[in-house]
Amino acid sequence: MTLKTPIIVLNVKSYEESMGERGLALTVACQEVTEETGVETAICPQMVDLSWIARQTSVPVLAQHVDSLTPGSQTGWTVLEAVKEVGAVGTLVNHSEHRLRLADIEAIVKKAGDLGLSTIICTNNTSVSRAAAAVGPDMVAIEPPELIGSGIPVSKAQPEIVEDSVSAVKKINPEVKVLCGAGISTGADVKAALGLGAEGVLLASGVVKAADPKEALLDLAGGI
Amino acid sequence: MTLKTPIIVLNVKSYEESMGERGLALTVACQEVTEETGVETAICPQMVDLSWIARQTSVPVLAQHVDSLTPGSQTGWTVLEAVKEVGAVGTLVNHSEHRLRLADIEAIVKKAGDLGLSTIICTNNTSVSRAAAAVGPDMVAIEPPELIGSGIPVSKAQPEIVEDSVSAVKKINPEVKVLCGAGISTGADVKAALGLGAEGVLLASGVVKAADPKEALLDLAGGI
Amino acid sequence: MTLKTPIIVLNVKSYEESMGERGLALTVACQEVTEETGVETAICPQMVDLSWIARQTSVPVLAQHVDSLTPGSQTGWTVLEAVKEVGAVGTLVNHSEHRLRLADIEAIVKKAGDLGLSTIICTNNTSVSRAAAAVGPDMVAIEPPELIGSGIPVSKAQPEIVEDSVSAVKKINPEVKVLCGAGISTGADVKAALGLGAEGVLLASGVVKAADPKEALLDLAGGI
Amino acid sequence: MTLKTPIIVLNVKSYEESMGERGLALTVACQEVTEETGVETAICPQMVDLSWIARQTSVPVLAQHVDSLTPGSQTGWTVLEAVKEVGAVGTLVNHSEHRLRLADIEAIVKKAGDLGLSTIICTNNTSVSRAAAAVGPDMVAIEPPELIGSGIPVSKAQPEIVEDSVSAVKKINPEVKVLCGAGISTGADVKAALGLGAEGVLLASGVVKAADPKEALLDLAGGI
Repeated sequence: MTLKTPIIVLNVKSYEESMGERGLALTVACQEVTEETGVETAICPQMVDLSWIARQTSVPVLAQHVDSLTPGSQTGWTVLEAVKEVGAVGTLVNHSEHRLRLADIEAIVKKAGDLGLSTIICTNNTSVSRAAAAVGPDMVAIEPPELIGSGIPVSKAQPEIVEDSVSAVKKINPEVKVLCGAGISTGADVKAALGLGAEGVLLASGVVKAADPKEALLDLAGGI
Repeated sequence: MTLKTPIIVLNVKSYEESMGERGLALTVACQEVTEETGVETAICPQMVDLSWIARQTSVPVLAQHVDSLTPGSQTGWTVLEAVKEVGAVGTLVNHSEHRLRLADIEAIVKKAGDLGLSTIICTNNTSVSRAAAAVGPDMVAIEPPELIGSGIPVSKAQPEIVEDSVSAVKKINPEVKVLCGAGISTGADVKAALGLGAEGVLLASGVVKAADPKEALLDLAGGI
Repeated sequence: MTLKTPIIVLNVKSYEESMGERGLALTVACQEVTEETGVETAICPQMVDLSWIARQTSVPVLAQHVDSLTPGSQTGWTVLEAVKEVGAVGTLVNHSEHRLRLADIEAIVKKAGDLGLSTIICTNNTSVSRAAAAVGPDMVAIEPPELIGSGIPVSKAQPEIVEDSVSAVKKINPEVKVLCGAGISTGADVKAALGLGAEGVLLASGVVKAADPKEALLDLAGGI
Repeated sequence: MTLKTPIIVLNVKSYEESMGERGLALTVACQEVTEETGVETAICPQMVDLSWIARQTSVPVLAQHVDSLTPGSQTGWTVLEAVKEVGAVGTLVNHSEHRLRLADIEAIVKKAGDLGLSTIICTNNTSVSRAAAAVGPDMVAIEPPELIGSGIPVSKAQPEIVEDSVSAVKKINPEVKVLCGAGISTGADVKAALGLGAEGVLLASGVVKAADPKEALLDLAGGI
């Protein structure tokens, strides 16, 4: 499946505010915003909620993480085949809070492609974005770790890192799309990110911890 | 929550045969066997199915694994609070295919106790069983790794390792119960395990890969 | 080899102040203090200096860490056989900055015993100390992580954690000796630790970063 | 420091045959072969022998591995600064037996460059070679894992993987040199590798486990 762009990808992490029913409510908010505004959204539920949420929404659902393993005797690990089985359309790979080995990133991206699943590789700087593009994911999400959860948008604090990543990624493989993460919380942040060449945003606390998550999503969608 | 003993704990791992709807069918089989025989069963679904399955069954559901982290910015990890939120009653800890650091085992067991969740620490020999008992879990499941998935029951191949583990665990803490895993697939295996002092069994492929999983579970229940 | 007690074990970590020639100078300081005061000392050099330093001193040398692997195709890992080959007498296991899986701790302790090498398992609380004692090391070093490098001695900040660990360890296995780490920097700290039942101390920055490391060691030795 | 090419890089891993004095003898053999044939060699000693061996040879010495950490409170880890301090000229990165996270590979390569140390990133296929080149190491060593230690040279079994890696790497960054590993044991293997565009070889068991390691090295050097 191909994710449409521009896109707002909501990673709900492991927050208290996104567990179980609260994660489902966030998913419903994404779906309503897409229905009302036409802006593409996607959600990454908590791992244990993936199957339950993917079965109840029309919004594209991605795993927050997968392990580079094959189905079988793998207790407590999550394989791509299970992600697909439950109705998710892809996965984040190598999030800043869940870094992966290079060989595993490549193996996951390759197998996801074979299974028809989308991959978004998260990166921390331009050099890593270039390497990520080289293994052929659908998207690269550039997120300087020091800005994650800071409320300071990367598009304002370090616009050059977004521009440089877009340029580096496109030079390696023009089909790979670039998302912009870290510190994004308003429509103005989204607009600035798109202005720098990004084709969407990846965010978490700005929506999950908002007083009114749907309101926050509507504001973000307004930037597109 | 306290798991009743004697008990049959079914870990469905990451097998193709236990993903999504097939995992739910295995859960239904457990529930029917408990209803028909009165023998306590519990199931450990694939991680991504945990929430979906726990919401649909009266059988105690356990996570296959949890990470020793607190709720928050933890992308792709599973915290105990989420396990509880979705309706699971506990978790396996330190399975042979997902070994954990000692400090994390202790922290998980302690926090699970505070949250009212049960813990089953998996171990590979008598010395590790003794250490596991020392951190105070509800149960210790002794599983010599070389017998896992072998079809050769530990109760027959290495009965002394079961007896020694029971004795070592009870000497450290008589309230900790001992399960017997690795190679268990028949009612006779279960009966032998109980005869050696175990208070239940932990198994996977013997049921998950059986031609008729419910039949396999009924046979196992017959050993109790 | 058996380490004599009471003992001062110096872990030089990966500080700039303990690399190469500076690590050798710290070793010489330990040796001189032992010769001048009769107090047993031991040193844990930086991993890459282990062979070079062990060949030049009469002070017992321990590795800071070993991997639970057998000799062979293991690039960049350190096996117990290599630690022994170069003349070290044992190893720290499970330091707070290098936590290990329970199964690996047990396997390392067992194999070290077979090879005649000493093991000191580092622990972070009483429950983990109890588990560590259960696998049969020579020593357990209790170090509450929040006090490591703090300059606040555990013997003053949390005396009960030292007493409880000594009591818990001896109840499991009276032959296991208990060291006290975290925040130790003076002879008074050492004296207090021994008064709580410890049979030595494990420390790092208090000596490595001292203006005069030998002076610092002499002060520590004065506490014995 | 820049490693000259063509080069034979000997990784002695953690074999019994390469510990301590036997590792030093292998280093002497490399040095003699370079002196006698003029062919550049380099050696990667066991981690604990790095300082001891680097101080005794004129052959370039590389670490088998480094950790992506800064000097300080890092017990049992090896930092680049320590590798430099003891006289090594660089390090292998991401060996098949010690895979690293992408973000760590990039950070190690960058810092090594700042410190004047060389880096050789090991890769397992063409796509990973491309990603490795993108972070700017001195060399990429392509080693299909299934051929490591097999005695079947990659240059014969999968010549296209060498050619494709050379082509992919040079397209990303023409300054990055490509080594060929896995299954190399004779001069004919070396000659074939160079014929496919490689600028040297990385090998282990073919020399370490040879009846006469110097003889084996002379044969390899003959292929250049």
